[in-house]
Amino acid sequence: MQLLKERIRKEGRVLPGGIIKIDGFLNHRVDVRLMREIAKEFGRLFDLTGLTAVVTVEASGIAVAAICAEEFGVPMIFAKKAKSDNIEGGLYHSEIFSYTYKKKVTLIMAREWLGPNDKVLIIDDFLANGEALRGLTEIVKQSGASLIGIGVVVEKGFQPGGAMIRGQGINLQSLAIIERAAPDEIIFRD
Amino acid sequence: MQLLKERIRKEGRVLPGGIIKIDGFLNHRVDVRLMREIAKEFGRLFDLTGLTAVVTVEASGIAVAAICAEEFGVPMIFAKKAKSDNIEGGLYHSEIFSYTYKKKVTLIMAREWLGPNDKVLIIDDFLANGEALRGLTEIVKQSGASLIGIGVVVEKGFQPGGAMIRGQGINLQSLAIIERAAPDEIIFRD
Repeated sequence: MQLLKERIRKEGRVLPGGIIKIDGFLNHRVDVRLMREIAKEFGRLFDLTGLTAVVTVEASGIAVAAICAEEFGVPMIFAKKAKSDNIEGGLYHSEIFSYTYKKKVTLIMAREWLGPNDKVLIIDDFLANGEALRGLTEIVKQSGASLIGIGVVVEKGFQPGGAMIRGQGINLQSLAIIERAAPDEIIFRD
Repeated sequence: MQLLKERIRKEGRVLPGGIIKIDGFLNHRVDVRLMREIAKEFGRLFDLTGLTAVVTVEASGIAVAAICAEEFGVPMIFAKKAKSDNIEGGLYHSEIFSYTYKKKVTLIMAREWLGPNDKVLIIDDFLANGEALRGLTEIVKQSGASLIGIGVVVEKGFQPGGAMIRGQGINLQSLAIIERAAPDEIIFRD
């Protein structure tokens, strides 16, 4: 998506360790007009026939997922990070490793909001190691819902998440794939 | 807001300890069409002349705040919960007590996204003890931005947050104020 790549080139900052900060429009301050354009682009990339929900995980995926859900006329459901190790009944859950928190985190979702009659699209802002998306796809699998695909705004192509997800035969569409990031240049995959 | 109160009466569940679960349309599965109606209602309740941003805090405020921001034509900025006690430079921060996590949490926001030339509306999904909103107003104050007011979707009128915020002279508008909640009935303030 050209508009997005231009914004990343213009406003993104590359920090040591391959960290790409684009928190001026994606995941701290959010340019909601750009999110609407992103939602329209996902609408073109996926066949959304029969879609019943957009699924994401807290926190920074929520803004783009909410606007996608409105664009597609369905509710948005976000998986939560469990507050304790004690998982109550009535929940789907999946354990992931969080690179942000540097520890295991359990994603949870109430069973009542997702089931075998659902057909969902997963949306997230960022894909790097793919742990959050692995957890979300596990939750969708547990629910028996069918998965149309996964839409990601920015994928770090030099980290393993994208290959892992595509290797499972999931239709993953990333609007910008960063192939290489150095302080003086950001190279996108074509 | 009548539409909202009807949804709370129809779908809300009251759990022991005054916990009101409305996670079927507000803070787990999100009815984004209702969020759009809520955004329009906030647009009627506040004078948004000169508004530059909608401000909220992660995680469950983000969906409604994003749709409000789009409705008002401004970006949305969400304060984050600090991952460690070590607060870097370049951040506004405010310490709050989180009743969800049962511990102190520090809210942070990058200084570069909010300053004295900004005029903001704070939006959140829920108001009970008011700690998150106290932290957000402190961050807005630190930035030098002016605060138009605070819009809350659901206020628990039997908890002290609302009185605390109104006592500071802040224009707080809650679309539904629950005065009393028992498993068999939910009473709203007029």
